[in-house]
Amino acid sequence: MILIKNIGMLATAEGNEPLRGAAQHGGVKLRRNAAVMINGDTIQAVYDNGSAPECDNVIDAGGRLVTAGLIDAHTHLIFGGWRQHEVPLKLRGASYLEILQAGGGILNTLVATRNASEDELYERAEKALAEMLDHGITTVEAKSGYGLDVENELKQLRVIRRLSAEGGFSVVPTFMAAHAVPPEFKGDPDGYIEFICTKILPKVADDELCEFVDVFCETGVFDVEQSRRMLTYGQAYGFKTKIHADEIDAIGGSVLAGEMGAVSAEHLIAIDKAGIESMARGGTIACLLPGTSLYLGKEFAPARDMIAAGVPVAVCTDFNPGSCPSNDLQLCMNLAYLKYRMTPEEVLAAVTINAACAVGRGETLGTVEPGKQADLVIWDAEDLDYLVYRMGTNKAEKVIRKGNIVK
Amino acid sequence: MILIKNIGMLATAEGNEPLRGAAQHGGVKLRRNAAVMINGDTIQAVYDNGSAPECDNVIDAGGRLVTAGLIDAHTHLIFGGWRQHEVPLKLRGASYLEILQAGGGILNTLVATRNASEDELYERAEKALAEMLDHGITTVEAKSGYGLDVENELKQLRVIRRLSAEGGFSVVPTFMAAHAVPPEFKGDPDGYIEFICTKILPKVADDELCEFVDVFCETGVFDVEQSRRMLTYGQAYGFKTKIHADEIDAIGGSVLAGEMGAVSAEHLIAIDKAGIESMARGGTIACLLPGTSLYLGKEFAPARDMIAAGVPVAVCTDFNPGSCPSNDLQLCMNLAYLKYRMTPEEVLAAVTINAACAVGRGETLGTVEPGKQADLVIWDAEDLDYLVYRMGTNKAEKVIRKGNIVK
Repeated sequence: MILIKNIGMLATAEGNEPLRGAAQHGGVKLRRNAAVMINGDTIQAVYDNGSAPECDNVIDAGGRLVTAGLIDAHTHLIFGGWRQHEVPLKLRGASYLEILQAGGGILNTLVATRNASEDELYERAEKALAEMLDHGITTVEAKSGYGLDVENELKQLRVIRRLSAEGGFSVVPTFMAAHAVPPEFKGDPDGYIEFICTKILPKVADDELCEFVDVFCETGVFDVEQSRRMLTYGQAYGFKTKIHADEIDAIGGSVLAGEMGAVSAEHLIAIDKAGIESMARGGTIACLLPGTSLYLGKEFAPARDMIAAGVPVAVCTDFNPGSCPSNDLQLCMNLAYLKYRMTPEEVLAAVTINAACAVGRGETLGTVEPGKQADLVIWDAEDLDYLVYRMGTNKAEKVIRKGNIVK
Repeated sequence: MILIKNIGMLATAEGNEPLRGAAQHGGVKLRRNAAVMINGDTIQAVYDNGSAPECDNVIDAGGRLVTAGLIDAHTHLIFGGWRQHEVPLKLRGASYLEILQAGGGILNTLVATRNASEDELYERAEKALAEMLDHGITTVEAKSGYGLDVENELKQLRVIRRLSAEGGFSVVPTFMAAHAVPPEFKGDPDGYIEFICTKILPKVADDELCEFVDVFCETGVFDVEQSRRMLTYGQAYGFKTKIHADEIDAIGGSVLAGEMGAVSAEHLIAIDKAGIESMARGGTIACLLPGTSLYLGKEFAPARDMIAAGVPVAVCTDFNPGSCPSNDLQLCMNLAYLKYRMTPEEVLAAVTINAACAVGRGETLGTVEPGKQADLVIWDAEDLDYLVYRMGTNKAEKVIRKGNIVK
């Protein structure tokens, strides 16, 4: 048993469902002077600080803010190589195509990921996860999608499994071979979708290597029918659904997300009214990625419109070596406040309960309540407002995952 | 003696002068496979790695990037209170004036700073400086300007002196009572400037409490003539000159900067051609503050135009509790690349040699050369491109200040 006492502010949602509409703000409760009892890997009780029972093992929160562990519901964690050398090319005015022809872009990461051994990929991801844990991120979703063939997609997914099994991290695996069309299928996205569905997906299912299937539904990548086909196959195998939708153009990805009951849709910078309405009807969570908008100098997704329409909003890093080489979810929280104009309570819901639901963990994660897994962060912050306001440096003071003090 | 060997890339400018124009990029040299010998608090020699002499005390850089310690040439480090509670007010649509009337804005910080004891201000600043050192920032400029009366301006400056004398930090003091018009002089900026020049400045000079004098030259704060008066007094006392200019409107602050031979001008978001030309003529360094532009959702200063015109550019945090509650200069380097479109070499010069010159330390800091002070950072990075590309997490692996390993 561990008692965290002298919590100045305990900020948490309640329940197992995503918060939407006005509840994304109002459903987050700010409790002054609290204490939390942990039993093994589980939260046993929440008390007023003055009425907490004795405990041999006490952590004094020193009047600070405590929240549930943060959850990053969208990353491309498993990749070979960084792409820093595109920076100077871009600055000298090279186009996307020129960078691609110079061996840059996603093709660069594809080659580096194929060439990397499973152990190399493991070590790289482990380092990134350790940084994230140090920043209070206790659960991370990770996608395949830089292998784009049987062997290398499975390799990426095996790395994800090992990170949980051996590394002691909590990583939720998503199969996303439909991330781009590989050189072997150049000009033939239909052929590649067929290949994924008949040649890769069955093996992924055999080895139980994923929980979600994701597809990049976008102009020039996969259209709505190809995306539907991919996700229908995925659902037939029992996997849950995510969709990269409306990042550049609203070609119907977010509408499809709602229609197919996708758990989440991602990016949504260009989402239109039809997409928002479909997602609200389907109960699909919007995984918004403000770091990518900042990095690429793009618009920020219309978070306020989605919240107003009753779409639950999550905020995630999109960590990847091209469009967002940052695994700092705290910075994304700052950006959600500054650029999405979300309230501190909405931002907290976006990286806890809504993110938990976006990775299928609403039952066990995302709130500080009896029975939930003991994933908690003591912040170097007096209150929730401070957490979203203070920018740049790591504000996680102490991190507890599954009842273990990991920082 | 300490030998840093096995440096994969040593990235540094040369000399004691700010880099301007094409030299801001071209003057930064990337040397592969180097070693650096430190003697006491001084850099003794730079070698090719293979030809470095033996040394009992070796730090293995493991093939990583090494640069001079970063210098943050613009902060408002000394303040009481944070202002996180303005965030929800702003989100609910409160105007600047409404926030001010609710006790927010700079008035809030003024009251909190006046109410804070010298020791309280010291402890707060010490914590922020420790974070900065942990991020590879080895020298920090700090301004007064939240006291706005005799007693409290001197109190702020005494804190800055103590941080260097007792705290072991390198903090460069700037006197900036002309930061805002205090309630006692409401509607009478001329009277307040007169008060500063005749009642506060002489005491600052008596106690040798500053090196620079700064003034906020802006619509609604101090006009060009008031600013000129303030800075002329400062120069008469032998202090060097900085000017907050053209943050909102180009009312002539940057033109004045060049005319008066100011060491630096700050913000410059709205700078016009006349201002750029005047600064280029006067050799005035542009201290640009991208974190503030991000935080306030403003335009980014036209860094490329300034570089093209031969104005040396520095990049700084503007750390303060209102418009930029971030002391993360690494994030500002990311923003300088992403938003100013500066090259990695230009960004490095902006936070080393140009920043050193902006705080009057070009002779001793800002480059890795024999005779300079041994302020060095070993980065968790292979090369300079990576340093500006990778966003969010702290990339400083090891930090050396005055020859001491402080991280």
